[in-house]
Order: sequence, then C-alpha cells, then structure tokens
Amino acid sequence: MSQPVTPMRTAAHAMFEADQASRSLGIELLGAGDGRAVARMRITETMVNGHDLAHGGLVFLLADTAFACACNSHGPVTVAAGAEISFVSPARLGDELIATAEVRTRYGRNGLYDVTVHRADPGGNTEPGGNTVVAEFRGRSRSIQREEERK
Amino acid sequence: MSQPVTPMRTAAHAMFEADQASRSLGIELLGAGDGRAVARMRITETMVNGHDLAHGGLVFLLADTAFACACNSHGPVTVAAGAEISFVSPARLGDELIATAEVRTRYGRNGLYDVTVHRADPGGNTEPGGNTVVAEFRGRSRSIQREEERK
Amino acid sequence: MSQPVTPMRTAAHAMFEADQASRSLGIELLGAGDGRAVARMRITETMVNGHDLAHGGLVFLLADTAFACACNSHGPVTVAAGAEISFVSPARLGDELIATAEVRTRYGRNGLYDVTVHRADPGGNTEPGGNTVVAEFRGRSRSIQREEERK
Amino acid sequence: MSQPVTPMRTAAHAMFEADQASRSLGIELLGAGDGRAVARMRITETMVNGHDLAHGGLVFLLADTAFACACNSHGPVTVAAGAEISFVSPARLGDELIATAEVRTRYGRNGLYDVTVHRADPGGNTEPGGNTVVAEFRGRSRSIQREEERK
Repeated sequence: MSQPVTPMRTAAHAMFEADQASRSLGIELLGAGDGRAVARMRITETMVNGHDLAHGGLVFLLADTAFACACNSHGPVTVAAGAEISFVSPARLGDELIATAEVRTRYGRNGLYDVTVHRADPGGNTEPGGNTVVAEFRGRSRSIQREEERK
Repeated sequence: MSQPVTPMRTAAHAMFEADQASRSLGIELLGAGDGRAVARMRITETMVNGHDLAHGGLVFLLADTAFACACNSHGPVTVAAGAEISFVSPARLGDELIATAEVRTRYGRNGLYDVTVHRADPGGNTEPGGNTVVAEFRGRSRSIQREEERK
Repeated sequence: MSQPVTPMRTAAHAMFEADQASRSLGIELLGAGDGRAVARMRITETMVNGHDLAHGGLVFLLADTAFACACNSHGPVTVAAGAEISFVSPARLGDELIATAEVRTRYGRNGLYDVTVHRADPGGNTEPGGNTVVAEFRGRSRSIQREEERK
Repeated sequence: MSQPVTPMRTAAHAMFEADQASRSLGIELLGAGDGRAVARMRITETMVNGHDLAHGGLVFLLADTAFACACNSHGPVTVAAGAEISFVSPARLGDELIATAEVRTRYGRNGLYDVTVHRADPGGNTEPGGNTVVAEFRGRSRSIQREEERK
C-alpha cells in the first residue's frame, strides 16, 4: 500500500470494536478507510498445529477481518458473500502477520477485494512489498440495506 | 453423508489431536476415514460480532479442519493449498455447526474436497441433508513427501 | 448422475437453442431438468494449442453451458455471477467431453452448482463415474426478475 | 497497466501462435513480457446468446489466454492449474474486450495471476483504468519441467 491509510474513523472501526472474535484472537486494526484496511495478528500457542505451523483457518480469519473492514470503510453496510484463498507459505509460532485489503472493483451491490497476508519482518516493516507472502485472498462482498434484503 | 463414517483411527486423528487451534475453539472430530471427515463446533460469545453473528472466518476454520482431516484420512501427508467458500446463511450465538467433508477427486498429488457446513437441529441430527446450510467450501489439497518438496 | 435426466422441455432448452456460442462450437445439450443438465462437446482442430491439448477456456465454456442450463431448468431466469474451475487432466484432439451439472444449494436469489467435466469412453458411456475427470467447476448463479435488477 | 508492455518476443508469443483456439476466435496478443500480457477479442455473432450478450465462457477464455501468455512470459513452461472468475458486467455483440494479466505472486512452482477484462472505449483506449470492467479473473499456474512431472 503506497499511500498511508487515512486515520479517519469509519463504520469499519465501530464494526471492528464489536467483533469479539477478532479481538479475542488479538487482532489489531491498523487502519481503515477508502476501501482499504490493514490488520495485524500474532501467531500464539493456541493458533498452531503439532508442527508449530499456524492453522490456515486463522490466516483466513485475519484476511477476512481486513476484508470486512475495507468493504465497510466506504458506503453502506456490507457483508461477505464468499472468498477464495491460496496458501502461499506457512506461518509459524511467533510470527506477526499483516493483512492488507484493498478494493478491486465495485458493481451494483457487489464488491471484490484483494487481501495479501504477509509476515512482518523483525524491524516492524508493515508494507506488503518487502516481505514473505503467506496467503492471497479475494473476497466477494454484498451491501445490504436491511436484514431482510440480505440475500 | 449417507454411509456412516468409519471409526477406524487414522493419521487424521493424530493430526487433529495435535491441532491446538481447533481444540482451543472447542472443535470436536466426530469421525474421519476414507476421504471423509465430520467436525463440530459451537458458536460461543468469543466467536461473534456485535450482532451475535458468527465471524465468517470461524465458519471457514471449522470447514478447513474437517477438510484437513478428510484429506489426511487416506494416503500420504497432505496440506491445504487453497480453498473457496460461499457463505450461505449466517450462524448465530449458541448454534452448533457441523462440517461434513468428502473427497471429490484426486489426481497426481492434488485433491479436491467438498465441505458443507450446516446448523445441527435441536434434536442432534448431524446429517447435512435435513438442516440449514451455513456455508459451502471447496478445498484444494496437495500431498507432500518431505517438507522440502512441499511446493 | 445416478438417475436419468428428465426429458421434459424447460426454459433451459429454449435458452440453449438461442445460444449461438455453444452451438457454433458443436455443443449438444443431452438433458436438462430439476437443477441438472448434461452437455457434450468434441475437441476439434480449432480448439487446441500447439500440443493438441484443448484450450482450458473451452473446457470452462462447456462446463459453463451445462451450469447455465442446470440453473435455468427450474424457477426464474438466472445468470452466472462467477465460477471456480480446477483443471484435473488435459483433454486432447478428438476427445468427447461430457459436462454434468447439478445444483448443490440454493438460497435467496443465489445458487451454487457443481459441474464435472469428464472424457467419454469409446463405448459411449456418458456417466461421470467410470471415466477420467478433466475438470471440476463450481458456478455461482443469481436469479433476476428484470434486467435492471440484475445486480 | 501504467507501464508499457515490453515488445520483446518471449515463449508466450510462440505459444500464442500455436494456439488455434485463441486464433480461431480472433484473439490478438497485444503484448507479453515480465509476467504480464494483454490480449484483445471482439464479440461476434457466433459468440452471443439470444439476447446478444457474450457467452461468459468466451470472456473466461480471453482471460485465460492472457493469463497463459503472462505466466509463460518469464521462466519455465507453465500450465493453468485452475482459475476463479467473477462476472462484473455483460459484454455485448460488437464490443471489443481487452484482458490485462499481471503476476500477483510466485512461489515454488506455483503462481497467481490477476486478469481484468474490460471493454475498450470507442477511441481505442486499452488501459484498464478508464473503462467498464466486464470480469475479474484470478488464475493459478504451475510450472512443469517435463510432461511426466506435470502434476
């Protein structure tokens, strides 16, 4: 992400604060605005399998949280309709992962968002460019007006 | 799943027991064998957002666990290469979810597995047929001989 | 597909007859009804690359045609919202391919359909079970009332 | 695509010239190099359905051709393992479509490529930015050394 994420408070921030699942896993929202969001999670002992590799489902969850914040950072309330993930390299116990979500296209009530999950380097670099990619995710969103119009 | 899942102990069971992530979320493995697996998870207060809806990432994680157990229930050690999920209906606080994974096709070192996540009815029916579908997941697996051959 | 496809004429048949693209590629609709459809295509000299392997895009197109016929074989007019394909084994010049589409789940105005493309054996067996799988496809449909409601 | 595609002749060009399927549909390769490729196709009368809308399978095929050229524009021979497509807006009879493929990430023998298909405007603008998006495609590639190592 070449430009800084706007610090403006959006619906995404309120949504994130109410998200017990993301918070109980220690996920932090580093920024959200303008169809973009960045979130961070550290791989702890309750997130790994027998080989100290992170469960892929948690890598997905981090990406999904960044996706949800990105698609609720502009316009009406939006839900995830689906997603595709490719696991690029394993994450390990102690790794700090950064998910960077960005809108790709919006049409009608639909949206497509690309999320890259990468490993932060020890110096704290949170840019997607210079680090190891862990997963690539593409989310499909749908905006809703009211609960009964959800589908 | 019309036939019962074999109770035979497989590599999938050993893998599941070492999976801290699944166990810390209370996931149970109900059965695994012959390219199939069934896993269960209850939606608790740390799994929901502000509207008491389950985080989609946790629905994915349950499906991913069932997928991993199914693809490690036969043959060599296998890892997830990627997956696609469609969110069909929301899961809510207190819901008991069942993920039923089944091999669709295997070719070379690759496999495709379909996982349906549905809501168990109050009577404890765990069959996918008669209940509300929460998500449909398709996982792509790849078997590995040694870590260095992983890609 | 264990039960025979109903020969009843549906909206899918009318749609197929107007589909110049499928017909100019020699695709035949073998049956459609009740959320299912079967279509056939022979790989000709204008469908291959320099190694006499079928272009993957044409394998997708065959699956997409079967998908469209399946999702228009019941209920209101339905369009493809998207699809995922895994290429399992190559198809070659002269191969006869069979695409078998079946509804997986429907919810609100959405549907998910699984399509298996397999190679027909010389004896003319068109069942998906006993033959080589060429591709697995999952399509996402959306029903429309009027053109302006399409999204 | 902000930088021009290099006119350097690559394996992608030789591959494209042998691709009867793409050529019989009138697809042109506008450029390939460095993990990128741009291809063009006009929607003719044999590419539409009864409502003069392009068959989605042909939109996929155009994207798949650009993807194949992009992933064979650098390094060893590479084949498509699978792809995901979202149909964003319909293409119509007479439309000129441009598919722009770009590598997203490469790991081991795998690659992920994003392809945007958009409608060229009458003035002949072939940039993805200023025009209507028709489809978004993400392809998964796998490089091969020899045919027997393909899987």
